[in-house]
Amino acid sequence: MRQFIVLGHDAPTTPDFSLDDLAGGAGRLDVLCRCVNSAFFLSHAIREDVQVHLVLQDEVTIRFEGSELRRLNPDERSTAALIRGALEERDEAIGHIAAESSPGVSVSKRGFAPVLEAAASEGTVVQLHEDGDPVVDVEPPENPVFILSDHHDFRDEEASLLADAADRRVRLGPELLHADHAITVAHNYLDTDGFATY
Amino acid sequence: MRQFIVLGHDAPTTPDFSLDDLAGGAGRLDVLCRCVNSAFFLSHAIREDVQVHLVLQDEVTIRFEGSELRRLNPDERSTAALIRGALEERDEAIGHIAAESSPGVSVSKRGFAPVLEAAASEGTVVQLHEDGDPVVDVEPPENPVFILSDHHDFRDEEASLLADAADRRVRLGPELLHADHAITVAHNYLDTDGFATY
Repeated sequence: MRQFIVLGHDAPTTPDFSLDDLAGGAGRLDVLCRCVNSAFFLSHAIREDVQVHLVLQDEVTIRFEGSELRRLNPDERSTAALIRGALEERDEAIGHIAAESSPGVSVSKRGFAPVLEAAASEGTVVQLHEDGDPVVDVEPPENPVFILSDHHDFRDEEASLLADAADRRVRLGPELLHADHAITVAHNYLDTDGFATY
Repeated sequence: MRQFIVLGHDAPTTPDFSLDDLAGGAGRLDVLCRCVNSAFFLSHAIREDVQVHLVLQDEVTIRFEGSELRRLNPDERSTAALIRGALEERDEAIGHIAAESSPGVSVSKRGFAPVLEAAASEGTVVQLHEDGDPVVDVEPPENPVFILSDHHDFRDEEASLLADAADRRVRLGPELLHADHAITVAHNYLDTDGFATY
């Protein structure tokens, strides 16, 4: 299982936003939608062994479960509609228990700390960091957990939680990438483990 | 210079489409918008050494020039608005001469063959192919030209033109990727040439 936790610092936690203004009034929800796209889409398939957790303002988390997803399309607008649908069900989520809003999409009232803790208990937390080891030199873990931030840097408290949880620290390349591009490169790194020797 | 030619088989060639239906009525223009995003965006910068050519229905080509781009944003909707703006200027483009519609964005009445020929004269055409050599085993060329297709496969005539023009044939990984993800991986491959030995 590959897990991606993406922090949306300005993203809406209620469904009252317009699909026509994802990059503006909806707090850069476009960034999170592209992360979902990068995490799941192959040319003619969905990556079933992937989970994405969108943590919205450290308050609400939307989970996408690859093996159960049914109505995901690649464009930003339709993914944002799935997120809006999940936010409409947020009052159904009691405590840390998630409520499913559409096949493979669920919402829970959890912030970054519990989401990270749960993911870390199931896999190897890989911190992407400009001072990390070049990814090509690192053996890919079996069940990696990657943590990414939207258009903002990690806040101090988030960076500190991440540093504490991190099992490895890697760098994907010499350039600093958008979160969705980093997910694509991370997948390629995991996909191609041993590929050169095919 | 890195060049990406992307073929849009169903994409509109006139500006009468809605920004609210990019993945439907606008012929999957969302795919092309994501390709533009992947080609140009770094975390805090635009890649200036990049050109993207969107070839719409083998009839009209929209060119994005990284060193001159000014109003590009990462979301699909605003990129589609730039494309629509270029299509509004298409009657200003005479013969193969392009007309600029906004800084770094221009339109010309050219199909795939002349666009490929011009790009091939300036760089090394790299064909992405599932039977190609693993990209990690291939020395990156100085001025690569990548050719990608939208959600459809290349048509026979396009595949034949591409095979004739191709200087190298590579595979990015064991999985078949969407065009925009392939651009991201190609950039990473070019960025990281020698990265492991930093």
